Order: sequence, then structure tokens, then C-alpha cells
Amino acid sequence: MAERPERSIPEPRKKELVADWQTLMRTFIRPENDASHQRLIKYMDQILYGLHDFLNKHVGITREISLKELSRRFMDVCINEHPEKTLADVISDIIEDTAPRAVNVASPYFVGHMTSALPFFMVHLKTIVAALNQNVVKLETSKVVSVIEKQVLAKIHRVLFQRSDAFYREHVQSTTSTLGSFVEDGTLANITALWVARNTMLSPRDGFSGVEQDGMAAAFRAHDIDRCVVLVSRLGHYSLRKAGGILGIGNRNIIPVDVDQTNRIDLAKLKDIIRKLSRPEARTRILAVVGIAGTTETGTIDPLTDIADICSEFGIHFHVDAAWGGPTLLSEKYRHLLSGIERADSVTVDGHKQFYMPMSCGMVYFRNPFIMDAIEYRANYINRPGSVDLGIKSLPGSREATSLILDSTLKIMGSRGYALLIDHGIETARAFADEIRRRPDFQLITPPTLNILTYRYCPEKIQIKMERGEIGPGHPTQKRLNEINQSLQRLQREAGKSFVSRTTLRHGDLPGNDIVVLRSVIMNPMTTMQILSEILDEQQAIVERHLLPF
Amino acid sequence: MAERPERSIPEPRKKELVADWQTLMRTFIRPENDASHQRLIKYMDQILYGLHDFLNKHVGITREISLKELSRRFMDVCINEHPEKTLADVISDIIEDTAPRAVNVASPYFVGHMTSALPFFMVHLKTIVAALNQNVVKLETSKVVSVIEKQVLAKIHRVLFQRSDAFYREHVQSTTSTLGSFVEDGTLANITALWVARNTMLSPRDGFSGVEQDGMAAAFRAHDIDRCVVLVSRLGHYSLRKAGGILGIGNRNIIPVDVDQTNRIDLAKLKDIIRKLSRPEARTRILAVVGIAGTTETGTIDPLTDIADICSEFGIHFHVDAAWGGPTLLSEKYRHLLSGIERADSVTVDGHKQFYMPMSCGMVYFRNPFIMDAIEYRANYINRPGSVDLGIKSLPGSREATSLILDSTLKIMGSRGYALLIDHGIETARAFADEIRRRPDFQLITPPTLNILTYRYCPEKIQIKMERGEIGPGHPTQKRLNEINQSLQRLQREAGKSFVSRTTLRHGDLPGNDIVVLRSVIMNPMTTMQILSEILDEQQAIVERHLLPF
Repeated sequence: MAERPERSIPEPRKKELVADWQTLMRTFIRPENDASHQRLIKYMDQILYGLHDFLNKHVGITREISLKELSRRFMDVCINEHPEKTLADVISDIIEDTAPRAVNVASPYFVGHMTSALPFFMVHLKTIVAALNQNVVKLETSKVVSVIEKQVLAKIHRVLFQRSDAFYREHVQSTTSTLGSFVEDGTLANITALWVARNTMLSPRDGFSGVEQDGMAAAFRAHDIDRCVVLVSRLGHYSLRKAGGILGIGNRNIIPVDVDQTNRIDLAKLKDIIRKLSRPEARTRILAVVGIAGTTETGTIDPLTDIADICSEFGIHFHVDAAWGGPTLLSEKYRHLLSGIERADSVTVDGHKQFYMPMSCGMVYFRNPFIMDAIEYRANYINRPGSVDLGIKSLPGSREATSLILDSTLKIMGSRGYALLIDHGIETARAFADEIRRRPDFQLITPPTLNILTYRYCPEKIQIKMERGEIGPGHPTQKRLNEINQSLQRLQREAGKSFVSRTTLRHGDLPGNDIVVLRSVIMNPMTTMQILSEILDEQQAIVERHLLPF
Repeated sequence: MAERPERSIPEPRKKELVADWQTLMRTFIRPENDASHQRLIKYMDQILYGLHDFLNKHVGITREISLKELSRRFMDVCINEHPEKTLADVISDIIEDTAPRAVNVASPYFVGHMTSALPFFMVHLKTIVAALNQNVVKLETSKVVSVIEKQVLAKIHRVLFQRSDAFYREHVQSTTSTLGSFVEDGTLANITALWVARNTMLSPRDGFSGVEQDGMAAAFRAHDIDRCVVLVSRLGHYSLRKAGGILGIGNRNIIPVDVDQTNRIDLAKLKDIIRKLSRPEARTRILAVVGIAGTTETGTIDPLTDIADICSEFGIHFHVDAAWGGPTLLSEKYRHLLSGIERADSVTVDGHKQFYMPMSCGMVYFRNPFIMDAIEYRANYINRPGSVDLGIKSLPGSREATSLILDSTLKIMGSRGYALLIDHGIETARAFADEIRRRPDFQLITPPTLNILTYRYCPEKIQIKMERGEIGPGHPTQKRLNEINQSLQRLQREAGKSFVSRTTLRHGDLPGNDIVVLRSVIMNPMTTMQILSEILDEQQAIVERHLLPF
């Protein structure tokens, strides 16, 4: 770690490191002698166990060292001419200096974000991917790994779309069709889905070669419109706005639709907007309606079957953002929550969320195995026609083979292994909601559909006044509650034991009634009700010690 | 490996694997007892050494098993309810079945693509990243790792742009400015650069909120143009066309500019196009000119200083695609080849190419530390104002901390370590070019600027006739030569020992004179002249055995 103040002359070392050809070559050769072999394995031991010991101790976003102070230690921008560190030094530094100041996302007390503990074998699988170092952009640098990727894409496609055996026999290894694509994350998956939908809608016609070739302005002229839009509940992920911006649609044309009391898209309002925009004088095309299967903030699921009906009626591309909720389909008990997803035209799912894969792995799937032809790119030196090069229809080019991790994991876990995790998360979140309801000074704001819930600290006497209508939206007490919950979340995070996140929700659809809520995501199987109760106890104590009197 | 034909009922196993809560929980707990500990470490040993042994044997794209036959073994699309494999099974399968059918990109005989051997410690570093599992989209899931990322971005920025010490002191850890961004690969880096350039050019004005918000069609109306274009040599990477498509510019508006005899952009033609497009009646804005620092096919470098002059003169965004060539700047001996790059507005560099990092790591850098404000996105639950959340200005959202690998590697290698690799590649490529020139039946097509060259098999007697002008462009012999070289490349690949790639170049700027060439990329330090001579010998033998008589 360059944790020293800025400097350009290295301090004297025990043994000066020198970059020379022989030393360098040795790093490219697998050490054959026993001592070197043992040393390399020992490093892995340090990584697997030494790191873990440190991480076990705390959540890690602590005030012990402020960000400002921390930043000051990482100011040096010079690259040393000669090596500063050996691998052993680097590993020690990471274990002793970096890890304790990173965030222990694996702690069962870390229930604030969609990043959690991983099954230990994930680290082994990631190591395999790095050791093989295949580039799945093309067959010539991946061969069987591309074939495995096509197979695992089909496996997940089948979970989502449940198409016939004959369908999968035809497409699983077809060199002309594509069931989906691995991308860096859910943002890129959503962008890919809307990119495909845009190109499919603004297709070639007389004198116009299609939006991909001719651009958006020409597309609007050719299709005689002024605008195209995407409709999504106002709880949609911000990556959809980003997609609108990148794709030249304009992010203001990602139109937020109001939600009902249960935080699901308001179907009447959705239909109303569609009808208005469908009138010829609106000069607008609706590129897609997005249903959310697990909103980021509240974990709620839009009524997918109803949206599918509406999209069928109006002939609109139906995209489902199931980045979070997708793997729920592996649970027999709860898969019904996502009913209707099989009628989507495209679906986003994240591997690094509820597939418990290491950072980062996004995926996008399409019902129609030929729709990705709309984003096909080729070049002389890569992605030749008739090849199975996976880079032909893909947002990224070079990619690591994260598909190999998912393929292996499905074999190690079985669908039932995932079902157990999903069921645990949903059921623990429900029990946690009950516990919050039982505590007089906490208020449950959004009960869990999946394994995400929001709540806030709100003293019993205030809750009574609210019920009586003495404190309504916009009342100064609401502002004070927001301040308290904001401080509470920060103080708990800084104490370094537990972490819940916070967000701001518009409660009951009333502007001026934005409320700050605490948000819990229960995905770590080690997170028990005992731990969640401790988190509430700590919150109560923080409020009483630091934030009262009200 | 599911290498059995399609089936839904698993075959009986020695010991039936069952998904149950206790087994599952054990995968989330670090095994504390000695036997389990030893087993986990043994797996890493298998991964590091077992895998390596297999990979050492051959290049791997062999005909031994055809793609079609291979595909047939990966048809099963069912996910087993219960586990099919233990981690030990999966590792054995990968070592015994997958690795031998993957591609040994680490072989010194694999000189066809920009993927090569890695220093062994890269696998350790990737393992560390997986074990920490930080998500650098936000501080709350990465803390110090975000700070380290900002530092390493500044280190590479300094190599590229050489700005003042005061500049870096101000920006290295600033929460309001951004020197660059890590993305999945070079494609996403190029897209990000052009996205930023597009938004900067099509900026807000009266009644128009900017292209990101209002979209491309509105932007053209507000700026009173019909088209915007990007100019790049016709050797530009296909990701630039993809960027044009995605961004709503239209990929036909990524205009290929002719190259001169040395495969560098023709400056006169570039200026000419700029002048024509700058006339008011063209109703066109030039979004960017792209200079290439290491073309994919020939490794040539555009005259960056001249392009910088032209861009300054006309006020155009100057992007340099240095995905390949960027790290050449670490070589004192050859950094002059990239002179002028410091005047770019944006630069793409790939970590998984000449930084020898594992798949995949792209980076994009900007001269102006505030220009990325043009792609800023925020949300309540993430990326709040005033935070250093790295996801605020970024194409992807969730990301793994590949920056930690680069940071560690720079310390282990020193700039000199990279310089040795760069120098070896360039000098070996030059020696290889000399060897090709010495061999009567081979013809050097593009001599190396960096470490990439192209050549073809071409019998001496044909070369003589060509020099005499008896065989010109379009002559049937040219077609036959193309066929021979295409077959030669395939046969050598299928033989499984060596791999060069092939591409098609337009020779001497004459349409109808497209020639198929063999392409070598020399980046593996184990690739010696001895090996390269063997590759030529093998090619000569293949032609004589299979492809003659001419």
C-alpha cells in the first residue's frame, strides 16, 4: 500500500527489488521446485484464511478513520520504476491495511445492500476463470467455454421462459440464434434489452437502413414520430434512465408511472398513459414497458401478467427487470410471485445478486432467439459469419468467462440449494417485519414481498398522533423524523458493527411527504432473527443516547 | 460437466448429493477444522498446478473434437434439483474435460490474438478481489478500495497526460472531479468516451436540456444540424461503429478515413473531410476524431500529434484508442511512438491486454477532470451528491474491484517490468519480420510498429511476377493466394500446436485487392525467435503437404 505521504524517492528497503528480465520471466513460469510451489500455495492459504479472519471482525464502514484522512494516504501518483513490493508484501498489505478498511459485505450484520456473503467455493471458481483466462468474445480464445456459456444461457432461459424441449434442442447450441448474453452488470443488461427493443422498433423501411445504421434523428423522420418513450414505475432502477440517455432516446422519455399503495405500478395509470401516447397526434412510439421483479428500494414486484396483457394488447416490447428477483423462480414455494415473467420479451437477471456469484455478472435474456440479430456486429479479424463467436451480438467485446462460474454453481447448489436461500430470505424478512411491528418505537413502511423491507424509527406517541390525523404529510415532525433516521443510519454505520441502508420514499403518493426510511436486504443465510433484533436494539440505543429528546 | 446426452433423470451416484440447509450453511462458513482447511487449500493447488499441467500441453483449438461434436455434449438444459457435483468434482471436470478443450492462450506458440500468458501472481490477485467481493459502485460497499481506485486512475492518467503535480494533488482524491473510469473492456471504454463527447457537444441551450435528457432528435433540432459524425481511420476497431449505433448517432456516421502506405490515417484526406463537413450547408457536427495507438490488425499508430493539431484547429474532441498500445508509454525506449497522446481529450486503455491483467478490464481516461459530469447519474439509494461513489459517472453500475489488481501489479512489476515486456514484444516482432523477409516463400505485408505484424505465404516465383507487374490487383492468383492462406491458418490451428490469426487487409488502397494475411501478436515473453521460426517451418510444411501444387 502506498500509504505514505507523497514522495518520489523510495525509502531504503531491506532488500532492493529490481526489475530485470530473469526475475520477470520467472513470474511467467509455473515454479517447479517444491519450495516455490509451497510458497504459492501458502499465499492462497493467506488469501482464503488470513483475509477472512480480518473480515470476520467487523462490518468495516467505521469512523475510526474518516474518508478524508484515508484519502490523504492515497495521494501518491508516481509509478515506481523498480518494483516496490513482492507478491508476499502485497498480500500482507491487503490483509493488514486494505481489508480492515474495506467493507465486510459478508457479515451477517451487513443487511443494507444487495451484496452479501458468498459460498466459499465461489472464490475457487473465480480463481479457475482467472487461471484459464479465456476470452469469450470469440471461439478462438475460448472454444469449449463458449459452448458451455450457450448451455448455461439456455438453462436460465428455460427457468425464465419455460419454452418447449424442442425449442431448446433447436437453440441451445445453434450458431444462428441467441438466447441471451452475459454482460458486466444489471445496468448493461437493461441497456442491452432497450437497445435491442429500440432497433427492433425503429427498423429499416424504404430509404431508411434502421436506427442502428442511420441514427435516431433519421429514424424519427423515417417513422414519422417526434419521440419514443419507455414506461416504468417510478420505483424503476436508475439504470433505465441511463439507458435512455445513452441510447439517444433522452432520459426524460423514460416516463415514471405512479405506483399503488403496495408500491406496484398503477395499471390504470399505465393504460391511461399508453392510450394518450398512442394517439396519432402524440407522434410518439412506446419502445417498451418495463415491469420490475424486485424493486431496488422495496423489493416489490409489479403485476407482470397484467403488464403482459397490456403489452400484448398494444403490441409493445415487455421488458422485466428481474436483476434482483429472478432467482426466486428456483423456489417452488415463491416462484408464483413472478408469474407472467414467462411472457416478457426480455429479462435482466444479475448473477452477483441472488445467484450469490462474485462481482460482477449481469445477464439479459430474450424470448425470441433471433431478436438479438438487431445488434449484430462483425469484423474481419473477429466474429466472422457462421461462427459461434459470442461477441457478435453483445454490448461488450472482450469478456471473462463468468458463465463458467454460474454453470459450476448450478451443479454444486442444485436448484434446491438456491430455493433454500430464497425461502430463508423471504421468511426471515417476514419475521423481521413482525418484529418491527411489535416494537412500539419502530414503524414498518413497506412490508416485504421478497426479502427487502423498509421501516423507520418513529416514537409510539408520534405514531398515535399520526393515526389520529394530528400529524399529516408536510408536518414539521415529519422533517424531524427524517433527520433522526438519517443520523441514526449514519451513526450505526460508523459504529462499525451493523449496516442497514437508507433511502427516501414518497409515502402514500403525496408530494411533500418524502420520508427517509431504513432499508434491509436479507440475503445472507447467516442473518438470523437474533441478529436482526440486535440491530433494532442498537438502533433504539443510538436514538436514545444521541438523538433524543425528540 | 454435463457431457452426457440430454437426460432428465440423473444417473445413480456413489453418494447421493442432497441440498439441505445444514450442508448449504457449511458453504457459507469458513471451515475451521484442519481437514477441511487442508482440503480447500488442496483445491487451490489443483487449480494452480493441475490446470497448468493440462494447459502446458497444447494450444487447444484442435480438430480432435469438432465444434459440432462438442456442442452435442452440451445440450442438456435442465438444472438438477439436487446437487450434481461437489466442488472437488467440478474442479476435476474442469481440469480433465474443460481445460483440454479450452484454448491455451498462455502457450508461447499462441501468437494470434491479444490474449496471452499472465504473470502467475495475477491469479492470486484476482482471487483476492473475489474474496473481498467489494462493489465499487459505491463507497458503502468498498470504502478504501474506492480510494485506491481513484489513486490508480490518477497514476495511469499521469502516464498518459503528464499533467502537473499540482493538478494531481488537486484531483487524485477529489470528490467532485473524475480522471477516468474502469469498465468491462475496451468496447465500453470507447462507448464511454464517445458518450461523454456527444453530451459535451450537444449541450443544453435555450429550451433544450441537453442530449442526455432530451434525446438525439431534439438535440439536432436545438443545434440546428442533421447529422453528427466521428472520423477514424478505416483500421479503427469495430467497437467504434457499435458506439455510433448505441449512442443514436448511427454507425454509418462513424466515417472511415483512408490510410496511407504505412497504414496510418491519411492526414490530407482527414483535413479534407473535416473541411467539407464543416461547411454550414453540410449541417453536420464532428463529434470526435479518433486516433489509434495500435490498430487491432496491424498494430500501427496514427500520427497523434498531427491529429491533435487538426483537432485544436477545428475545436474537435480528440479521442485516442490506445486499448492495445497504451502501456508502451511505460517504455522509455518506445514511448516516443505515442507522442501526442498527452493532447487527447480522452484515451481508452485495456488492462487485460498489455497490462497483462486477467480478463477483463477496460479503462477510459479524460484530460479534463470535469468532462465526465456530462454523464452523471444519481439516485436516492445510491450515488448521493457529495459522496465519492464511483458509480456516479460510469457506464456500468455494480463492478468488481479490478483496480486493486492493477494497483498491486504496478507495485510488483514497476514501470520497468512493463518496459521489459513491451521492449521484448517490439524487438521480437522486428526480428520476426526480418526472418519472414529472409524466407523466400513468405511475404511480409505490414512490418511491425509495435509488436504486431502481418504476412502471408506467397511462393517466391509469384512474388517475382508481382514485382514485375505480371500479377496485379484482381489477378486470379491473388484469389488463390487468399484461399491458401485461409486454409493454412485453419490447418495450423487444427493441428493444435501453434496459432496465428488471420484477417483481410486492403492492400495499397485498391478495392478488389483485399488480401488474406496471417497476423502475429508477440506479447508472451516466452515467445522466442526459435518458436517463431518453428511456426514458419510448420506453415511451410503444411502448405507443401496439403495445399500445393499451386
